[in-house]
Amino acid sequence: METVYVDNNATTRVAPEVVEAMTPYFSDFYGNPSSMHAFGGSVGAKLKTAREQVASLLGALPEEIVFTSCGTESDSTAIHAALQSNPDKRHIITTRVEHPAVKNLVEHLGKIGYRTTFVPVDRQGRLDLDFLYDRLSDDTAIVSVMWANNETGTIFPVEEIARKVRQRGIVFHTDAVQAVGKVPIDMGDSAIDMLSLSGHKLHAPKGIGALYVRKGTKFAPFLMGGHQEGGRRAGTENSASIIGLGRAAQLATEWMDEENSRVRAFRDKLESELLKRVPASMVNGDPENRLPNTTSIAFEYIEGEAILLLMDQHGICASSGSACTSGSLEPSHVLRAMGVPFTAAHGSIRFSLSIYNTEEEIDFIIDKMPPIIERLRQMSPFWREGQFA
Amino acid sequence: METVYVDNNATTRVAPEVVEAMTPYFSDFYGNPSSMHAFGGSVGAKLKTAREQVASLLGALPEEIVFTSCGTESDSTAIHAALQSNPDKRHIITTRVEHPAVKNLVEHLGKIGYRTTFVPVDRQGRLDLDFLYDRLSDDTAIVSVMWANNETGTIFPVEEIARKVRQRGIVFHTDAVQAVGKVPIDMGDSAIDMLSLSGHKLHAPKGIGALYVRKGTKFAPFLMGGHQEGGRRAGTENSASIIGLGRAAQLATEWMDEENSRVRAFRDKLESELLKRVPASMVNGDPENRLPNTTSIAFEYIEGEAILLLMDQHGICASSGSACTSGSLEPSHVLRAMGVPFTAAHGSIRFSLSIYNTEEEIDFIIDKMPPIIERLRQMSPFWREGQFA
Repeated sequence: METVYVDNNATTRVAPEVVEAMTPYFSDFYGNPSSMHAFGGSVGAKLKTAREQVASLLGALPEEIVFTSCGTESDSTAIHAALQSNPDKRHIITTRVEHPAVKNLVEHLGKIGYRTTFVPVDRQGRLDLDFLYDRLSDDTAIVSVMWANNETGTIFPVEEIARKVRQRGIVFHTDAVQAVGKVPIDMGDSAIDMLSLSGHKLHAPKGIGALYVRKGTKFAPFLMGGHQEGGRRAGTENSASIIGLGRAAQLATEWMDEENSRVRAFRDKLESELLKRVPASMVNGDPENRLPNTTSIAFEYIEGEAILLLMDQHGICASSGSACTSGSLEPSHVLRAMGVPFTAAHGSIRFSLSIYNTEEEIDFIIDKMPPIIERLRQMSPFWREGQFA
Repeated sequence: METVYVDNNATTRVAPEVVEAMTPYFSDFYGNPSSMHAFGGSVGAKLKTAREQVASLLGALPEEIVFTSCGTESDSTAIHAALQSNPDKRHIITTRVEHPAVKNLVEHLGKIGYRTTFVPVDRQGRLDLDFLYDRLSDDTAIVSVMWANNETGTIFPVEEIARKVRQRGIVFHTDAVQAVGKVPIDMGDSAIDMLSLSGHKLHAPKGIGALYVRKGTKFAPFLMGGHQEGGRRAGTENSASIIGLGRAAQLATEWMDEENSRVRAFRDKLESELLKRVPASMVNGDPENRLPNTTSIAFEYIEGEAILLLMDQHGICASSGSACTSGSLEPSHVLRAMGVPFTAAHGSIRFSLSIYNTEEEIDFIIDKMPPIIERLRQMSPFWREGQFA
């Protein structure tokens, strides 16, 4: 059975070009880039190139890139840096629909004495911006708003928010893990102070990420120890993966048009055909401002995990909410924040495409989904009740 | 020119067996192990095996292994966990010869209000145990002592210390980054509560580490977010590298005898021949309790960086102190703590071998070093002074 992988917001295939770029740095050029000898130093030179490649994707300066081990570490580092650099400020603003990497951390900080504000969203997942702006205060150390939501693909107006936040002299961070590579980003013309990205969401390997830190932004390292990354992140540089991330950043630049044309067209076809063929189904999130590769579809009155199980029998890989929250029986915090009714939130499936998907795969999914939904609904007491209601 | 790599305490060659184990998990089996589908789940099964392999190397239970991004993160996590879990205790004990991952972190904690004690060492690098035991108090949250020193290879009596520390109900952590794979470790018969290891010191890739956390030890995550690693370390699992680390742990078990026989014999030959052929040279550290692969040799009255430069012209890769502190003009904090005279500390070179070294390489180094030292001494005002003194 072939695998039809439409779970790219969970993780992506490492591009063969990236594997090729990385491979020599395992067993051949394995020196420590911080070493004094040429063998290590030559690796250091490649890291410089990779830093330039990642900077280029973001329209940033190379020295504004700090390599980390993942998006979660980037997020933790950003929030930690803002709090450490502004020890007199005790207020944090974020949203109710953030990834757990931000949400759970800020909730924890709320428990240990920080004041926290979680900005609500409307039924389409759009942020209540007035609510956010009203909460900005002299006590606010950081505002952290994701660029695009991992579950619905909804894109938030982070530039607009960043400008307002900057006017108040407050640090603005965005978790852009899902946006990088899909949305044009130009930090050279931006009010964003810090931005997180994750390699494995853009065809680089797992275990590598980066934090953009605008030149001049007050900073404090999260991982302390050696002098790596200009004293901003200790630990021997993960050379092979950094070099892989650099190559992936190059590919992302090359592929961005395709993400926004072919991939978007496939997503649109998948979505419109499923809505047409499956009764009582609807799209979660803002249909206007949305990542080109993502659709979250609610199939009412059935269970997402049962849907995934039957999809899996056809080799179709998708997800119900975030992989980082799977294993929990609670419906997604994102859909709950949006006020998606219980009967729809539970049966929501996220399809997230990549440039590796083919039209045949999209057609295959369109063909297989309606009978899966039909079969589960025949077994669902909620569905029968819904029908009689 | 061939590279003669004797800088394995800085980083090691990734074993080809490890690369082979990892490679399928980049572009073929790239699913997110936390995903609901079988494609991701199959990766989860491989992570289980890797966890068992790492546990087996340590004589630990699989659930006592938390994968991290590096040794530095493991160290930070351990110290953070002990402090968070014992919020009423404000005292930290460590040593003056720790790796910067512990030393710099504890120094920082000292600046933000914790009470810190750095245990001194004698001229041979041996810890003043009475000093340590005298400082244990009801206020002590954690004692962190490295298993083996990265610069001199000196092995510390961590089991003996751990037992005394446990009697006082205090958490004991060891940075065993340099010891794992070279020294038999059995956590099943140990009083150590937490132990850090790093993949790239034992022929796994950079960017992967682990923290052993004894079952029952109070814990608090350092990276918060998703539920990965049983809620102990957030962030998508670095599957390929975790699988690589598992394979490397297996190899380390197989290779441990060779590390302690063939590699040790090479190290001993290198050391004794250099001492014989180079006047005014001496070994730094405890000659008795020492890693089998490491020798730190002081060539008096000359500069380590100049020595490395000339060695590099022959393709010989070694180091002066830790790669994590290179770039600094200060002599190594380890050698200073030992009271190695200025004129010897500056000219100290660490040779650290691995199972990949051959006798030809050792002979090559023995052949090339004496003229290098001789040449530099001819240029050194200190040497001429020393001669006339």
